[in-house]
Amino acid sequence: MASDAPKPTSEVPPAEQKPAAPANAEGGAQEELNPDGTPLSDKQRRKRAEKAEKERIKAEKAARLAAEQAARQAADVDFATENYGTLPMNQSQERPNVQLFDIGDIHPEKDGQHITMHARLQTSRAPSAKLAFFTLRQNLNCVQATLAQAPEKVSRQMVKWATSVTPESIVQVEGTITRVPKPIESASVTVKDAEVKISKIFVVVPVTWEGQVPFYVDDATRSDAEIEASQDTPRPLPPIALDTRLDNRVLDLRTPTNQAIFRLSHGICRLFREFLENNGFIEIHTPKLQGAATESGASVFKVDYFKGKAFLAQSPQLGKQMAISADFGRVYEIGPVFRAEDSNTNRHMTEFTGLDLEMAFQEHYHEVSDLLNQMFFFIFTELPKRYGAEIATVKRQYPSEDFLVPSQPVNLDFKEAIQMLREAGYEVGDLDDLSTETERALGKLVRDKYKTDFYMLDKFPLEIRPFYTMPDPKDNKYSNSYDFFMRGQEILSGAQRVHDAKFLEERLAAANIPVSAMQGYVDAFRLGAPPHAGGGIGLERVLMLYLGLGNIRRASMFPRDPKRLEP
Amino acid sequence: MASDAPKPTSEVPPAEQKPAAPANAEGGAQEELNPDGTPLSDKQRRKRAEKAEKERIKAEKAARLAAEQAARQAADVDFATENYGTLPMNQSQERPNVQLFDIGDIHPEKDGQHITMHARLQTSRAPSAKLAFFTLRQNLNCVQATLAQAPEKVSRQMVKWATSVTPESIVQVEGTITRVPKPIESASVTVKDAEVKISKIFVVVPVTWEGQVPFYVDDATRSDAEIEASQDTPRPLPPIALDTRLDNRVLDLRTPTNQAIFRLSHGICRLFREFLENNGFIEIHTPKLQGAATESGASVFKVDYFKGKAFLAQSPQLGKQMAISADFGRVYEIGPVFRAEDSNTNRHMTEFTGLDLEMAFQEHYHEVSDLLNQMFFFIFTELPKRYGAEIATVKRQYPSEDFLVPSQPVNLDFKEAIQMLREAGYEVGDLDDLSTETERALGKLVRDKYKTDFYMLDKFPLEIRPFYTMPDPKDNKYSNSYDFFMRGQEILSGAQRVHDAKFLEERLAAANIPVSAMQGYVDAFRLGAPPHAGGGIGLERVLMLYLGLGNIRRASMFPRDPKRLEP
Repeated sequence: MASDAPKPTSEVPPAEQKPAAPANAEGGAQEELNPDGTPLSDKQRRKRAEKAEKERIKAEKAARLAAEQAARQAADVDFATENYGTLPMNQSQERPNVQLFDIGDIHPEKDGQHITMHARLQTSRAPSAKLAFFTLRQNLNCVQATLAQAPEKVSRQMVKWATSVTPESIVQVEGTITRVPKPIESASVTVKDAEVKISKIFVVVPVTWEGQVPFYVDDATRSDAEIEASQDTPRPLPPIALDTRLDNRVLDLRTPTNQAIFRLSHGICRLFREFLENNGFIEIHTPKLQGAATESGASVFKVDYFKGKAFLAQSPQLGKQMAISADFGRVYEIGPVFRAEDSNTNRHMTEFTGLDLEMAFQEHYHEVSDLLNQMFFFIFTELPKRYGAEIATVKRQYPSEDFLVPSQPVNLDFKEAIQMLREAGYEVGDLDDLSTETERALGKLVRDKYKTDFYMLDKFPLEIRPFYTMPDPKDNKYSNSYDFFMRGQEILSGAQRVHDAKFLEERLAAANIPVSAMQGYVDAFRLGAPPHAGGGIGLERVLMLYLGLGNIRRASMFPRDPKRLEP
Repeated sequence: MASDAPKPTSEVPPAEQKPAAPANAEGGAQEELNPDGTPLSDKQRRKRAEKAEKERIKAEKAARLAAEQAARQAADVDFATENYGTLPMNQSQERPNVQLFDIGDIHPEKDGQHITMHARLQTSRAPSAKLAFFTLRQNLNCVQATLAQAPEKVSRQMVKWATSVTPESIVQVEGTITRVPKPIESASVTVKDAEVKISKIFVVVPVTWEGQVPFYVDDATRSDAEIEASQDTPRPLPPIALDTRLDNRVLDLRTPTNQAIFRLSHGICRLFREFLENNGFIEIHTPKLQGAATESGASVFKVDYFKGKAFLAQSPQLGKQMAISADFGRVYEIGPVFRAEDSNTNRHMTEFTGLDLEMAFQEHYHEVSDLLNQMFFFIFTELPKRYGAEIATVKRQYPSEDFLVPSQPVNLDFKEAIQMLREAGYEVGDLDDLSTETERALGKLVRDKYKTDFYMLDKFPLEIRPFYTMPDPKDNKYSNSYDFFMRGQEILSGAQRVHDAKFLEERLAAANIPVSAMQGYVDAFRLGAPPHAGGGIGLERVLMLYLGLGNIRRASMFPRDPKRLEP
């Protein structure tokens, strides 16, 4: 039953309804007369009709405006005051045991589930006064949440208030998990196929920073490539300098990238300990306050110690060797290491975390270097298994090639390394130390030849190692010492130590160090120390190189260098 | 075929053979005459016989001496030179992969098994030139070893050499596990029902200490009771002062007691981490070098930092709270803590190991104190299970009552504690802090009432806690803070922290501390920190109190106090 004539129905909104037809169009009405009884002229009739029509339109308009005003007044009675607002400061007033939901557990299969969660409000935008979108963040995860006006539930005032909440506030949100028809495009949102439809929103902890926050966490999470690509667009993204990040480290650490980096930092420590404890090592704690400068005095921090002086340990070398002499057999320590070197490079800090170990061996120091190889293999194999999400998160901001680990350990003799470098055109002396440049070149050569980003260099020349390094028994120009490398940079330096006090005195003499300067160290071996070897690893260096972070400060939660002691 | 007549056999040693019968006893000899042909008189005959007898005896003696000398010379050809001696210094010359045996694996069921082991020579004694007894030590375990002369195997020289080896040398011993008929009595020997019969013994590492070692490890392992009881005997045992031990800590640490104490130290750290990691905590490393003195300036060590000054962190308080503000949620740290307090007591050190944790909570700080209770229960339950041998070893030298842990946590309110003390006759103010004396008294009262050496005291008066402590929401004379106690001494202090920057400024004002002095701390909260609570534990204090060691220095491998920076 098609018809061309428009048929007004209740489905058409009132504002779009056409005006009613003029009264004179209707049939059967009584005819109006002049006061003298004569019938109205055509002109009179037209004028009267026009006037009536004007009044009718005017009255109609007035009625409409009155209705609209009444509606507005009705709307201004905020029916949602219980559903939003700022909660009182938590002083542990009560403990109702509400179950809070993790963003990581949001899935489209949970469509319709009502949840309560606490999260950081990362960003908000309101395309209209009736609808707002939020990005909510917990650690590595972000989810989209929407708040739409709804009668009796979400008021105009509630939407307005919610969009005014300062980013980085902690909010408590109640809502419903809702499957979305197509994946959410925003790069910062990690939950792609579901969102939360908000029914209640409260600020648990407000931001009280004066003025605008130094930067936004979503901006701080972008990769260099993303920032660069945006520069020719209408909305160029702001690059954020490392110093700005470090000055506001608490904010910077909230990026999913940093949340991942420091979970991986924990992961490396955890795997280090797990391997060593399964291999009979015990954890020790050696004192950082030392009575004497144990290594070169120039790079040791001095401490006012009551009426005298103390020094901050540059490594747990002495302590862990004493623990070996005291028969603890296999020891490790995770602790701060202090270096008073005025180096302002991207790979030096004045305080870093040392992963140190020392081990008495039975026959040969390769018992120790073999164990170190196994330990690194364990770490590099388990990290991607246990921390896959974290590695992927870091790569989004800092893209890097996967860390190559070979199926079998690659152990090179120093002599072989010199040969490889010479064949590649580098001029290097037989007994010279590697420079940063030749180290990196060697890293590339080894990667090409052995398909590995990790290898050991063994048998360093004796002259370039510390006095306590055991000489090679067959050729005393070389020594029983080794370094381990990641992506062409040293991450562990170690050796068999001289465990015989008399021989240690000889080695000190050969190095032109007076025995008196190292008396405490030498004495520790007079009571008979077993043959032993060990090494020290810089945690931040391993983390930086594994993830390709480019600057050691990115691998330290609160880095310290000659110019930075805060925060 | 029995016979009374002695029958010399080859089984009788030559030295025990009887002299041959005199010649005149033999029948059928030709009779001697005088030069004139007359027969000899009886007297003459007797004289001659006597003379001949003397000569025969003389000759026989000479022959015997010659034979004995020959025998001695034969014996002096040392047939055992391959079986003992000092090995060359280990420079990793070779790696033959000899399987070494642990003393802990020696059992009488292995009677007859040939083994090779490395061990410390603890003591030696030789009841005769033919037999020597040794005590050999590895960590917690000691075994008796015997070396007896044996033809072609163990020479006189070998026994003599072995008994001359300096105690504390590291020896390599080959021998046979041998069941002993009755348990070995010596207190220092832990393997009671078997010993090792030595066939070869070499010094792997000699002791090169000049003069006598400062003390012997077996003497250093005796209990006070044992030393006291020996004072009225012919061989009184020497007491060894704590300072003497600490001056020679490498030697002291070799006692089985100390081997056990520092394995337990590792055990506590391991259980602490295990519990926390299973509960979602991550390990962080906060800087020990600080730009400002974070707490009271008086007790902070100052460091020369290039051209300026730095301070050593008194606790990771600021760092771990910043980690919470940075959304890490649940963090822990095991690291050195520095206190520049000139306290020379048996429970203070200038550097100790802090086990620190901090945790964002959802509703109430009791979420954190409950978790702390669970954590300590886990540690106290698992320690005896996993480290039973170590605890037993320590108790031999330092006897103590078993550490009492109740079936349910004992949590007391401060008000209740004051009430208990008053009922026991102590005069204590409502809002006064506990003194060392009242703490201990309370510990006894709680032990009597609840049968526990471990409990929590909650809701301390606000005034006696640091400014950053959250007041109790119902009564602001009190606070959301707690201490945990072991055997009546505090081992953890903690609280809900003020997480609101503005309220923190109010609290600073109330404590008469200028906000400027704590600007960095306050600023850390302006970006919105979740409600959180935490605490710090002194590792050495827990170890000392759990084991009843009586002095904190015994629980630190290389203790530091105002008067000690070495070794």
